Amino acid sequence: MQDKRPTTLTSDPHQRLGKPAGGWRARLYAIIFESDTPKGRAFDLALIGAILLSVLVVVLSSVKPVADAYGAWLHRAEWFFTILFTLEYVARCLCVQRPVVYARSFFGIIDVMSILPSYISLVFPAAHVVLGVRILRLLRIFRILKLTLYIQEYSMLGDALLASRRKIFVFLSVVFLIVFLLGTVMYVVEGPENGYTSIPTAVYWAISTMTTVGFGDLVPKTDIGRAIASFMMLLGWGILAVPTGIISSEITYQRGRSVLPLRACPACPATGHDASAQYCKDCGARL
Amino acid sequence: MQDKRPTTLTSDPHQRLGKPAGGWRARLYAIIFESDTPKGRAFDLALIGAILLSVLVVVLSSVKPVADAYGAWLHRAEWFFTILFTLEYVARCLCVQRPVVYARSFFGIIDVMSILPSYISLVFPAAHVVLGVRILRLLRIFRILKLTLYIQEYSMLGDALLASRRKIFVFLSVVFLIVFLLGTVMYVVEGPENGYTSIPTAVYWAISTMTTVGFGDLVPKTDIGRAIASFMMLLGWGILAVPTGIISSEITYQRGRSVLPLRACPACPATGHDASAQYCKDCGARL
Amino acid sequence: MQDKRPTTLTSDPHQRLGKPAGGWRARLYAIIFESDTPKGRAFDLALIGAILLSVLVVVLSSVKPVADAYGAWLHRAEWFFTILFTLEYVARCLCVQRPVVYARSFFGIIDVMSILPSYISLVFPAAHVVLGVRILRLLRIFRILKLTLYIQEYSMLGDALLASRRKIFVFLSVVFLIVFLLGTVMYVVEGPENGYTSIPTAVYWAISTMTTVGFGDLVPKTDIGRAIASFMMLLGWGILAVPTGIISSEITYQRGRSVLPLRACPACPATGHDASAQYCKDCGARL
Amino acid sequence: MQDKRPTTLTSDPHQRLGKPAGGWRARLYAIIFESDTPKGRAFDLALIGAILLSVLVVVLSSVKPVADAYGAWLHRAEWFFTILFTLEYVARCLCVQRPVVYARSFFGIIDVMSILPSYISLVFPAAHVVLGVRILRLLRIFRILKLTLYIQEYSMLGDALLASRRKIFVFLSVVFLIVFLLGTVMYVVEGPENGYTSIPTAVYWAISTMTTVGFGDLVPKTDIGRAIASFMMLLGWGILAVPTGIISSEITYQRGRSVLPLRACPACPATGHDASAQYCKDCGARL
Repeated sequence: MQDKRPTTLTSDPHQRLGKPAGGWRARLYAIIFESDTPKGRAFDLALIGAILLSVLVVVLSSVKPVADAYGAWLHRAEWFFTILFTLEYVARCLCVQRPVVYARSFFGIIDVMSILPSYISLVFPAAHVVLGVRILRLLRIFRILKLTLYIQEYSMLGDALLASRRKIFVFLSVVFLIVFLLGTVMYVVEGPENGYTSIPTAVYWAISTMTTVGFGDLVPKTDIGRAIASFMMLLGWGILAVPTGIISSEITYQRGRSVLPLRACPACPATGHDASAQYCKDCGARL
Repeated sequence: MQDKRPTTLTSDPHQRLGKPAGGWRARLYAIIFESDTPKGRAFDLALIGAILLSVLVVVLSSVKPVADAYGAWLHRAEWFFTILFTLEYVARCLCVQRPVVYARSFFGIIDVMSILPSYISLVFPAAHVVLGVRILRLLRIFRILKLTLYIQEYSMLGDALLASRRKIFVFLSVVFLIVFLLGTVMYVVEGPENGYTSIPTAVYWAISTMTTVGFGDLVPKTDIGRAIASFMMLLGWGILAVPTGIISSEITYQRGRSVLPLRACPACPATGHDASAQYCKDCGARL
Repeated sequence: MQDKRPTTLTSDPHQRLGKPAGGWRARLYAIIFESDTPKGRAFDLALIGAILLSVLVVVLSSVKPVADAYGAWLHRAEWFFTILFTLEYVARCLCVQRPVVYARSFFGIIDVMSILPSYISLVFPAAHVVLGVRILRLLRIFRILKLTLYIQEYSMLGDALLASRRKIFVFLSVVFLIVFLLGTVMYVVEGPENGYTSIPTAVYWAISTMTTVGFGDLVPKTDIGRAIASFMMLLGWGILAVPTGIISSEITYQRGRSVLPLRACPACPATGHDASAQYCKDCGARL
Repeated sequence: MQDKRPTTLTSDPHQRLGKPAGGWRARLYAIIFESDTPKGRAFDLALIGAILLSVLVVVLSSVKPVADAYGAWLHRAEWFFTILFTLEYVARCLCVQRPVVYARSFFGIIDVMSILPSYISLVFPAAHVVLGVRILRLLRIFRILKLTLYIQEYSMLGDALLASRRKIFVFLSVVFLIVFLLGTVMYVVEGPENGYTSIPTAVYWAISTMTTVGFGDLVPKTDIGRAIASFMMLLGWGILAVPTGIISSEITYQRGRSVLPLRACPACPATGHDASAQYCKDCGARL
């Protein structure tokens, strides 16, 4: 019932990172970390563009015909973006007063992870490692999130999910029990000769059935198996409604809460009175 | 909280298009653009019939056995509808006072697009172009929408979607990030030898898995791949609840808004009286 | 806003069918049409059992190994149930005062349809006809519905669906437009060589994709086709939320309406006052 | 409207099982059955660990490569857990005053079922039986549920499902009727030559289609079959909304009920005060 908004103010990133008081570092900080000046806005847009382009390079490198034809160009583009993001990382570390706080923050770690793999591939050029490395580089895309993180909608959806997390955990644990039991039943009923080679495989099938995905790589072939599968599909359909109900009810509640604070008490700091309330619920003053 | 209905009145299509004051153009306008006279109603129904028939012709032309047997008849029918819709377009342009406003409106553009391709195919008869052209012709079907656009339900559903557009965009961007990351993980884990030939292909698979479509043309074959796929299916199932919650809450709110603000008490600050209420529920004053 | 319950009382089936005033017909009527006496209850249960058994016979006749082994027995059972249901139909016609009203009612038609096919198969014994005939016989199962139709939940769900029917129609028409357009796009993009042999086939695929069914008998094989399919899956996922929101909001509203009548006015017949109301909304009397 | 919570207090498991008044049995009871002492908490955690490990052993035994390599070790681990759970079962029976009540309770039966199969496999070592036996052993995992059963979320979700059970039953029966009828139609339309070999098979396909699972092992191949399938997919999509609406509305109601009736004003008939309110919102009286 207590409002958590004030705490987000004290955990303001600018305060934590230590915004410099003046000089070139303060100007650099305003450009890199803030987005309310024309320069800061231009930097943000350029950064989003650079991240998207660098991701595009990684994606194109994975398409064989393109990689065969333009491999050298893609390699150069990859190093161009790696050096660009390295310079950006150095600039970020320089212009904050507490670089360690930045380096340890969620986006500080992602920033390092999006440049380190390129350098590591210089020392260990094994093909397999290089492949695994590319995936981390794609985390650059999360930086787009950072730039627009303050949009109210993100936090509202986040609040709704956070408030429902216990209910969703309970729900998922029950679903996992059902999926595990029914998967094992199918392993016994259908058996390895119909593709259900082990309990993990059967559980994978059970999850794909109850979530209504239904790949079709494994399908029941015996009559009993089909009867159990039919039951599982109807069950999955029925309980699909539960997480929707949880989130739906939570979003309705969050929406209601965000409207209520409009009615504030004239005598005390309490807000969130009902639309029809006549007296303050905290101090009893006439509204 | 403010009612947006009045703005839709000022953007009334009849005012924008310039309804003629009298003469044959006013009579034609009443038939073509309005549907509250018997003639206008008959024209609308005939138009819907013509559009559906012309669409049927395009559909039948695509079915090879039918096209082989009745190709000539279908060709003639296509040109019949093209000429009919051309005449209708000319009539629409003639009877409004601002034909340019009509030609630039959404349905004006669709009206041109549904006749132009036939004429273009006369000059450039290349088979490939003709095929691509047919698809635009099908946009004729959107004209049905225009005729029934004023039904309250359309605007209510539209309002709910419009009001939720920022939340849905935020949600889809988060979903796209997850799909992109997990798709790339699967590209690394399964690799080209199991069908995941490139990152775009893997992302396509990831989308088909998380939206619970599950075509089954690509399926994980390694144990780690199946474990990740299971996680993705459960995750997709869980977050499927989010857009439903957003829309559900929005529709509930829209429904509430269309009843509540209408009845305020003249004597006290109470609102939200029933549509049939005669006395204020809080102070007993006559409404 | 007005309560529709009273109208359902005037359309009471007992009044419409004409319940006999006394004699053996009244006793038979009480057994066959009513279920509040011990005999009527026993008859209903026996009838449900007979319908389920007769359906089981039809189902077993369709399973080849069973039909080969017990064909003669199943044939005899089929005729046993046909004669039983014929006797029941005659009894129903005899004991009501307006047999034509019964014969023309929904269940009167279903009752005839569940016995006629057996007799028709005597005259036209063509194998194909017999096969088509069996399907109608399965409509017998709808008679179970009749027996439990008065359960409040049925009518509440029905009310919610009925009240949402216009919104659902609007929604389905928009969905059909999208499915038709995108299906045609896929027909042009993928073409007959990838299995999209005609526009109807492509629309069938588009429906199976946007409803998240995803059979996998048709799958996009070109890169552009996969991109469009990905877009369609996300779109289908998004708008899946709309019918859920409509029904969800409607059920919440129906539930609310069924709770409200508890607060009745002491001075006039008005009910359904808000929980916090202090004066009657219709006559202004103090609650 | 009445609160059912008090009844759950009278059906408190500790009272039913007969908690001993003192001595070693009371100490053992506190460890095994209760989780509010440090020792009881440690026992619960150890038990969860043991159950998970024993399940892991069963799962690994089903993976052929693992079973071939470490079969002997897995066999020993299985017997270790069987004896461990046997000792635990004996201890549970000893420390309660009414062991028969425990043995007949849901978890008492599961406890026996999770140890009995191992002993039975000694007498009847037939491979087939042993396989079927393992599945019951997995029910051990339900004991985890027991340990965390008192979490409020479980009971809230349970209440919502329980309160909706009649609506869900009505809904499922209607769905089953539709699925049965449409499945039979498809059996007639597509026939055994397209894979629809019997009515049960066609109903299995109809369920997999209407629940949007869509395995793709059976797919319509005729044009009429595809048209019916398209209709079924849209229908399934539409009525998917109904169970979601039922649960969603129920969870919203449960949430509302758990807050609203708790705070009534002592001086006026107003209810529904916030949990943190100190004064009545309608009359200003101290709560």
